[in-house]
Amino acid sequence: MNGAVDLQLGEPDLTFRAAGDTLVRRTVLPSGIRVLTEQVPGSRSATIGFWVAVGSRDEHPADSGHPATFGSTHFLEHLLFKGTGTRSALDIAVAVDAVGGEHNAVTAKEYTCYYAKVQDRDLPMAVDVLADMFTSSVLDVDDFESERGVILEELAMAGDDPADVANERFFEAVLGSHPLARPIGGDAHTIGAATRDAVREHYRACYRAPDLVVTAAGAVDHDELVAGLSAALVAAGWDLEAVAPPVDRRATEVALLEGRAPLTVVERPGEQAHLVLGVPGLVATDERRSVLSVLSTIFGGGMSSRLFQQIREQRGLAYAVYSFAPGYSDAGVFGMYAGCAPKNAATVAALMRTELERLAHHGVTDEELARATGYLGGASALALEDSDTRMSRLGRAELALGEFSDLDEALRRVGRVTADDVRALATELAARPFSLAAVGPVDEWMFRSVVDSPEARPVA
Amino acid sequence: MNGAVDLQLGEPDLTFRAAGDTLVRRTVLPSGIRVLTEQVPGSRSATIGFWVAVGSRDEHPADSGHPATFGSTHFLEHLLFKGTGTRSALDIAVAVDAVGGEHNAVTAKEYTCYYAKVQDRDLPMAVDVLADMFTSSVLDVDDFESERGVILEELAMAGDDPADVANERFFEAVLGSHPLARPIGGDAHTIGAATRDAVREHYRACYRAPDLVVTAAGAVDHDELVAGLSAALVAAGWDLEAVAPPVDRRATEVALLEGRAPLTVVERPGEQAHLVLGVPGLVATDERRSVLSVLSTIFGGGMSSRLFQQIREQRGLAYAVYSFAPGYSDAGVFGMYAGCAPKNAATVAALMRTELERLAHHGVTDEELARATGYLGGASALALEDSDTRMSRLGRAELALGEFSDLDEALRRVGRVTADDVRALATELAARPFSLAAVGPVDEWMFRSVVDSPEARPVA
Repeated sequence: MNGAVDLQLGEPDLTFRAAGDTLVRRTVLPSGIRVLTEQVPGSRSATIGFWVAVGSRDEHPADSGHPATFGSTHFLEHLLFKGTGTRSALDIAVAVDAVGGEHNAVTAKEYTCYYAKVQDRDLPMAVDVLADMFTSSVLDVDDFESERGVILEELAMAGDDPADVANERFFEAVLGSHPLARPIGGDAHTIGAATRDAVREHYRACYRAPDLVVTAAGAVDHDELVAGLSAALVAAGWDLEAVAPPVDRRATEVALLEGRAPLTVVERPGEQAHLVLGVPGLVATDERRSVLSVLSTIFGGGMSSRLFQQIREQRGLAYAVYSFAPGYSDAGVFGMYAGCAPKNAATVAALMRTELERLAHHGVTDEELARATGYLGGASALALEDSDTRMSRLGRAELALGEFSDLDEALRRVGRVTADDVRALATELAARPFSLAAVGPVDEWMFRSVVDSPEARPVA
Repeated sequence: MNGAVDLQLGEPDLTFRAAGDTLVRRTVLPSGIRVLTEQVPGSRSATIGFWVAVGSRDEHPADSGHPATFGSTHFLEHLLFKGTGTRSALDIAVAVDAVGGEHNAVTAKEYTCYYAKVQDRDLPMAVDVLADMFTSSVLDVDDFESERGVILEELAMAGDDPADVANERFFEAVLGSHPLARPIGGDAHTIGAATRDAVREHYRACYRAPDLVVTAAGAVDHDELVAGLSAALVAAGWDLEAVAPPVDRRATEVALLEGRAPLTVVERPGEQAHLVLGVPGLVATDERRSVLSVLSTIFGGGMSSRLFQQIREQRGLAYAVYSFAPGYSDAGVFGMYAGCAPKNAATVAALMRTELERLAHHGVTDEELARATGYLGGASALALEDSDTRMSRLGRAELALGEFSDLDEALRRVGRVTADDVRALATELAARPFSLAAVGPVDEWMFRSVVDSPEARPVA
């Protein structure tokens, strides 16, 4: 880090002793930067992430007067690795490679996160490199054109993955014209049209102190991190005392089901049909999130789940089959995936839908409920051995809920979920309009008996 | 586990205090079963694996008089999850799901491994379930047919992944008629033709005491594991005192370059060309493995590597680009992968080959050497935080080398690698016959300038 800085950093506004004797602390600097740490006793490594609550859903169309066009959030994420005023792209890569660390970033629908996992002694270096990238990216003109090529290849790679294509089409089918429906990376057209000015304006507007959340877990001392981070930001010219108001960039009024489609088929050669079937789900803050976790676990969460047993174990129709239920700030989806022989595609799609309806009509057993509780508790305990998971959990909770979420309390809520709760939620989900996305050597007509045609069932 | 058993289990023949104060112990039971553990202080979870040194390369053609046909090793791996005399497939799935554990298996070219990762209190359950699967699978007739369908879908899924197809074709191109060249899972033809009798004979012949290696890492007590494992095996009817000779099933005389191809192209629609280019590599026991690790790191191991910098950072031609260098008992490969626009495929393939030749001609800098040493040390330290990695490392070293491999000693060997060592090995590799596998909307003629045609360069 860049030496001591004489700042009044203030006391943490949260100090929490969590399970496993970890210590969670949160400090909000006057400028609005939020720093959360979870110190894990005995840990020899740490993961640190720099988060900003801006994702692909916060982008605007090219002709809207706003600077950020579709795919520009992800474009910016790439450019932050290309160099700063004092570090070249190679310098950034060398810094973390030389200590065997992991260094990457993720652009999601509602956030962007830059992170590094390193041994404890290398944490100050990671803070410096990430702070430099976050504050001082040069967004060089030549780098912009070169990285456009890299991103087009990333999109092409995803385009060659039929399961990925089915997932993207499914979000569009379920969420219609909602901004969450769009693919995170944009497409070849929007990336081809992206301009450096628009991406630079996006960087200037969104990567500010009140937008920055820094989380770290593992071998991390809270006060040292706050001091080191502050020093790095001050060295980059940031004024940590200047108060800037947070900006809510998120559109709040969206007609959820407008533009949805019951069926979308991408016909292409291939050995399998890749199917994603589902309905609108729950928002991230829905109080039934615990019920949804239990429902998803029983329905499609492991080898003992209903989807796995019915479609793979009993009938041998698929290798990969599971459900998923991401929640966002103002929408969510509940989906199921299976890859199967094209000749079985209609059967598998019908089986998936029938399983959800069976869950709604007949509910779950006490044994399934107990198993799901054990599954969620055990899987959390194993996942939290890794500082990546803790760092990510701190960041996502701060961005989505604005507060620390204690795992033990979350598991207690899971333990209070009843069979009636699960059945009621399954009933609600199964009554929502289904959408099916299918990719492979398949035809629309195959699925007419599974998903109602637009004529047969009114939208919304 | 199944209660106490009065066995003379003998003392461990290896007790080793490794870095991080972990305790490595090995016991060989009279029947030849090998048990290795690495107890990690402070760990609250454990990963346990049941290994057998039989993989796809040990299979025989259908008409050879031997029972195991191509793909049957992987077929058997699937069937072990389908039920035993006392547990149904659902029972097996429920046992591990109910505690939130991870439970899976991997079939490789030279081994098969069944593993579970659980919290410490659940380790006895995991030992019981894995021992039951390993000893007492029923290989039911109906399950056999149902699982044939699942495996065909797994193969179809891989067939829809062009990078996966390029990798399989590359192994065939480089290794020719060597058994390591074959795809692990067989193909639709061999799986369609597989018989339960052949798979059952493979199970009977290969899943015996002298073939079994059990490794565990994390929160594991060696003596308790040996006792619990022994009790579970005795309960399954195994005689742990009966001495059976180990069988070496591996063909040792193979003409390495017979049947190799300089170029193999799979033309199919798609957005990218998926390229794998390389040469025969080193065997697993080659004394230059440390040199190869350093070479691979510098050449294609991270964001600062030469391939990444030249092809992605400098030219923006690919998103994914890296090298890999697996070693097996009697062969190895050194390969490079890139996915790129079809119009750039010849350029990217030529750049990859040129980079290896540049490494051979000009060698590496001291700075690159130091960075690679730091990379390998740091990455190992981070990886070994996970009990999965430790369990896997114990098993692979026992199968490939017949001995425990101390990480600190391995890193000391890496630290002694010189620039001359790396250059000498690069020179040797670059002089070997290159093979290129390309999948996508590409033609053979595109690559004639990159890879010599069969007419221009004699095979072997």
